[in-house]
Amino acid sequence: MHTVYKAEILSVGNELLSGRTINTNSAYIAQRLTILGYSVRRITTIGDNLEDISLVIKEIIERKPKLLVITGGLGPTYDDITVEGLAKALNLKTIINEDALNELKEKYMKRGLELTQERIKMAILPEGALSVKNTQGIAPGFMLKYNETVILVTPGVPKEMEAVLDYFINNLLNEKPPIHYYEESFLVKGVMESELAPHIKKMVKEYDIYIKTHPKGHETKDPFLEIQVVSSGLNKDETLNRVKDTIARLKTIVKQLNGVIID
Amino acid sequence: MHTVYKAEILSVGNELLSGRTINTNSAYIAQRLTILGYSVRRITTIGDNLEDISLVIKEIIERKPKLLVITGGLGPTYDDITVEGLAKALNLKTIINEDALNELKEKYMKRGLELTQERIKMAILPEGALSVKNTQGIAPGFMLKYNETVILVTPGVPKEMEAVLDYFINNLLNEKPPIHYYEESFLVKGVMESELAPHIKKMVKEYDIYIKTHPKGHETKDPFLEIQVVSSGLNKDETLNRVKDTIARLKTIVKQLNGVIID
Repeated sequence: MHTVYKAEILSVGNELLSGRTINTNSAYIAQRLTILGYSVRRITTIGDNLEDISLVIKEIIERKPKLLVITGGLGPTYDDITVEGLAKALNLKTIINEDALNELKEKYMKRGLELTQERIKMAILPEGALSVKNTQGIAPGFMLKYNETVILVTPGVPKEMEAVLDYFINNLLNEKPPIHYYEESFLVKGVMESELAPHIKKMVKEYDIYIKTHPKGHETKDPFLEIQVVSSGLNKDETLNRVKDTIARLKTIVKQLNGVIID
Repeated sequence: MHTVYKAEILSVGNELLSGRTINTNSAYIAQRLTILGYSVRRITTIGDNLEDISLVIKEIIERKPKLLVITGGLGPTYDDITVEGLAKALNLKTIINEDALNELKEKYMKRGLELTQERIKMAILPEGALSVKNTQGIAPGFMLKYNETVILVTPGVPKEMEAVLDYFINNLLNEKPPIHYYEESFLVKGVMESELAPHIKKMVKEYDIYIKTHPKGHETKDPFLEIQVVSSGLNKDETLNRVKDTIARLKTIVKQLNGVIID
């Protein structure tokens, strides 16, 4: 087995806990990291509360992921307290980050706007943090390393999160997992999930592969499944072939069960 | 201050950790619980892994929420292991639940289908669990009480989760929070989040209210905000009036800052 590059994601925001906002950010980040070869182990959502943010970051750091991506709570308002929570969790001081301040100066001053206390707040980062440019909004992102964990913090507005994550992955993430990830899926009508279950159970025991059935219809009334095959490994061709072979075997089984394959 | 009814949500599924599926379930559940008067404190997503599921449930139980809603992993396949994870976490045995078995018998047998091992699996629940009817699919949900926490477990397919949650809230949730929750929001163009920030900070200090600004445009280029006011309390009219008064005060401030209100 290859080394697993574990990752975690932490979303900060009361609007996520009240269900007002659907957490699309987590899915986006999870997908980017998965394709890069990370194994995302846990996604946590927490409110804009200093104690909770600090506590959950401590818990994550104790699980020693290679990468932690935190989103939300970097803005100018009183309830944007992710930096404070992170600093408290890691016992770091916060200071004005010169790069972040320059980024803010540029953004506000070119519009003739002053750097008020609320605006300067967005440049106050944990000591040792490297600011990460936000091309889509105001608040800069930042990264820092703590023990074995690289921590990236991005704003919560989706396009700003995407911009900061993108910049980080393309320019700042030095140690990427040496893993190739591949997945493929197909649709099947007329086979119940419970009929396929014993066959899949056998296959995943025999091969180093992950198979998941996603029910899309009603189990007995209108069986309709998406069957997904996932694998990752050090060798690109092997990984791809493992998935392709499994898909072929699954299609044979589906036909034997009188299922209709919809590609 | 009134008693806070804390709630947590746990989503189980590799497809959420790989970003393949956006976790709409959590937002739906969070919204239902928030409107009922619960304070949702944390949402966790974990993969289909026995150790991880068991560990995270133990952690949640230690935080003593009044209510924990778990979704996903109740189906017939090898990787549906939420029941096992829950039983391990709480040190409970699993047994065939007669009500769940009858529900499954009815669903499969009326279509002339046998109860195979994979199908019976969906009736194996922790000892002491009360099965909760799933009108939209096969796998029954269930609930149980552990110490001070009511635990509801639902399937992960959204319409099945909704059906089970609905039945639970309407028929089985005996002790609801005695809290009224109210929120209202309005849209503003032409005021930057950083301009409003000091005013809002002052208001939330003075009144028992939560105000959040949601940036929808670009802070300096095209400022566009949604301003949301939330309150909850024992008295319905007081809660509603507190929100209405705050909205009125905020609109006055927005006008003073030359913002345009879009209702």
